[in-house]
Amino acid sequence: MSQLTDKENQILNSQNFVFIATVNPDGSPQVSPVWAETQNGIIWINTSINRIKAQNMARDPRVALSAFDKTDPYNEIAIRGHVIEMVEEGAREHIDMLSQKYLGKPYPWSHDSKHRIIIKIEKN
Amino acid sequence: MSQLTDKENQILNSQNFVFIATVNPDGSPQVSPVWAETQNGIIWINTSINRIKAQNMARDPRVALSAFDKTDPYNEIAIRGHVIEMVEEGAREHIDMLSQKYLGKPYPWSHDSKHRIIIKIEKN
Repeated sequence: MSQLTDKENQILNSQNFVFIATVNPDGSPQVSPVWAETQNGIIWINTSINRIKAQNMARDPRVALSAFDKTDPYNEIAIRGHVIEMVEEGAREHIDMLSQKYLGKPYPWSHDSKHRIIIKIEKN
Repeated sequence: MSQLTDKENQILNSQNFVFIATVNPDGSPQVSPVWAETQNGIIWINTSINRIKAQNMARDPRVALSAFDKTDPYNEIAIRGHVIEMVEEGAREHIDMLSQKYLGKPYPWSHDSKHRIIIKIEKN
């Protein structure tokens, strides 16, 4: 495990979307934007259990993350990491917390609020 | 080959960064932001030959693209595609053209202007 740099923490803990890449069962790449934050040096994201990315990460924990500062897109970060834990407990409260960070209100998409999962990622 | 939708064309041809995922030699994912545009239904990006993503695409043409409208991050696209051509000819002119689109001026990073390559991607 490597420590996140100050710049990585700053970008991950601001209202920046993080693009997370995973690998599909056939070995092809997959990428999508997520909300993110860090807690004690670990990157936390939150998704629905049914999403392709969650299934991919459950099978192969290797991920790559890319993001930039929304006030300066040329201030960017690229992180290679691996999933260390996927937990359902507390995931609905966590998506509301992330929604507060990004939208300033609880998670508004009720159709997508079930079957949430917190995914914890360690930098390689 | 599939046709790009109107929404995909619109997002790819506006000043939106596109996150492109590739696969590393060890099978792990890699992702980074690029400038992009479409020409005749094909997605064109431009990078340095020396970048990991270019080496990855030369070895395994499978890619995934993710982007959103910068005026509405919840208006997003996800495209699976494959590289159909990587060409050096015209790549310096092309990076200036992309720079005009994104920055309104010729490509300003001279240290990174050599060894450019145009990468053409077809939607699966």
